Amino acid sequence: MFGVTILGNNSALPAYNRHPTAQIISLNDQLLLIDCGEGTQMQMNLYKIKRSRINHIFISHLHGDHYFGLPGLITSYGLLGRVTDLHLYAPAPLKDILDMQLNVASTILPYKLHFHFLEKEEIIVDEDKFSVECFKVFHRIDCWGFLFREKKSPRKINIEATTRHNVPVELFKQLKEGRDVMVNDNLIKNEDLTFANRPPKSYAFCADTIYTESLSEKVKAIDLLYHEATYLKDKAEKAASRFHSTGEQAAMLAKLSNVKKLLIGHFSSSYETLDEFLTEAQAVFPNTQLALEGQTFII
Amino acid sequence: MFGVTILGNNSALPAYNRHPTAQIISLNDQLLLIDCGEGTQMQMNLYKIKRSRINHIFISHLHGDHYFGLPGLITSYGLLGRVTDLHLYAPAPLKDILDMQLNVASTILPYKLHFHFLEKEEIIVDEDKFSVECFKVFHRIDCWGFLFREKKSPRKINIEATTRHNVPVELFKQLKEGRDVMVNDNLIKNEDLTFANRPPKSYAFCADTIYTESLSEKVKAIDLLYHEATYLKDKAEKAASRFHSTGEQAAMLAKLSNVKKLLIGHFSSSYETLDEFLTEAQAVFPNTQLALEGQTFII
Repeated sequence: MFGVTILGNNSALPAYNRHPTAQIISLNDQLLLIDCGEGTQMQMNLYKIKRSRINHIFISHLHGDHYFGLPGLITSYGLLGRVTDLHLYAPAPLKDILDMQLNVASTILPYKLHFHFLEKEEIIVDEDKFSVECFKVFHRIDCWGFLFREKKSPRKINIEATTRHNVPVELFKQLKEGRDVMVNDNLIKNEDLTFANRPPKSYAFCADTIYTESLSEKVKAIDLLYHEATYLKDKAEKAASRFHSTGEQAAMLAKLSNVKKLLIGHFSSSYETLDEFLTEAQAVFPNTQLALEGQTFII
Repeated sequence: MFGVTILGNNSALPAYNRHPTAQIISLNDQLLLIDCGEGTQMQMNLYKIKRSRINHIFISHLHGDHYFGLPGLITSYGLLGRVTDLHLYAPAPLKDILDMQLNVASTILPYKLHFHFLEKEEIIVDEDKFSVECFKVFHRIDCWGFLFREKKSPRKINIEATTRHNVPVELFKQLKEGRDVMVNDNLIKNEDLTFANRPPKSYAFCADTIYTESLSEKVKAIDLLYHEATYLKDKAEKAASRFHSTGEQAAMLAKLSNVKKLLIGHFSSSYETLDEFLTEAQAVFPNTQLALEGQTFII
């Protein structure tokens, strides 16, 4: 399973029971947290997120609605007796803030918190089954997007076929890697002995950003794009002045980048209902959905 | 009206939909905020607290469950266009933390935030109708309680009586101050011309503290005492080791101090239900209530 669960979809001012930004990526049995607005740990309780499975936290930028829930989460992990290392990817000044908060509280965490500073566009996590890359987006302050890519899964052995062809177990590794094999001087094609796994999927989180076509290079042809849509298109000027985007602009980027599906969020608290965001975006890019809290989107 | 509304009654780890500490004091048309755990601004939305009426915020100590909601509240006031001065009473290091958080976000507040450092036991607010005094409590780190006292209200003119005695309006000021007056060479007693207002009330918030009889001096004979009760009495040792109190100890202090009523809160997340706290405290001090979220207690 590769999916994203929305814990917060509102912009800075919490309203209409919408919360500041936080998203959970499920990747097999691991969870990754993107941004951690105030109240994220309560949202985790509400939506029964197994927080102990989170080992990587990504903070896009240091506006409060994207990290004011982090000190509480980090402290709670301590109270819960966490011992597993926790990796935090964030702009550097966050370390000073957290250090100061832990110091004044005389808190010593029972686990190791590793800070990884976001400084240039690069791969920041490279695990067996997935990678995470950070890329610059364009906001009022230093701000980062994150691109999550599954890695190509090994092919699955077709046991019926390998038995029929008397393929020795020693060759299974080559088969999984997609190579053809020699059995009793016969070359057997890989696709006759294995099944393809589903193709690897990708998700991009574009954080807070002004609309810019330059982002399309970064997110070209991915499976699911999350793009902020703080305002409706009639407020495009206001959006730009605050380095935010509109629903229509999010859809324009999705179309331009030829992504499979678009998710929009970070709605301004000036909107009580969200229908118009969907209408406006779908007019440009039909396969759009609202990032509703508590909902999980399979990638 | 002088009352206290509970926004959070849980200790550090949010659980069972209970939130970290925050209380709203209503004093006539003013609101005062005591502590501001994570999620306090969302609790204000839920319980329809008119946050614009808050001009004074008191932070007892710098454990996160008592202030991690403050940066969000302060930022939200900015987004809401607040211009009224805001007074913050807190241990000094909080200023550095907030300054750093505002700096990295490039946030300039549109209102003036006045820091008042808690350094010694003294009156920290002295207004026409009430005063607030801070006093030391005994916790793992520097920690303060707050004592809110209404001031004696002027007596109310009995218009029927003043008319009957032909008392000139010029003497009303003296009457309100409780003085007798001379009318046509007759001394008329104040109580014949005025009504008494209700006696001034008092509320003490004892923050997080180990049980100590020495606190009773501070809160002697007040109308409503809030005392923490993190654990039940069978965990008295654990409570003391963490500089917290039990339900029974809160009641012992209430009894010793001869207060009129006791409110207990700051319940550990290890307790799903709270009934036993009430039973245990009422056995010692019958006029005890649980500080339940959303509930307002008239003082």
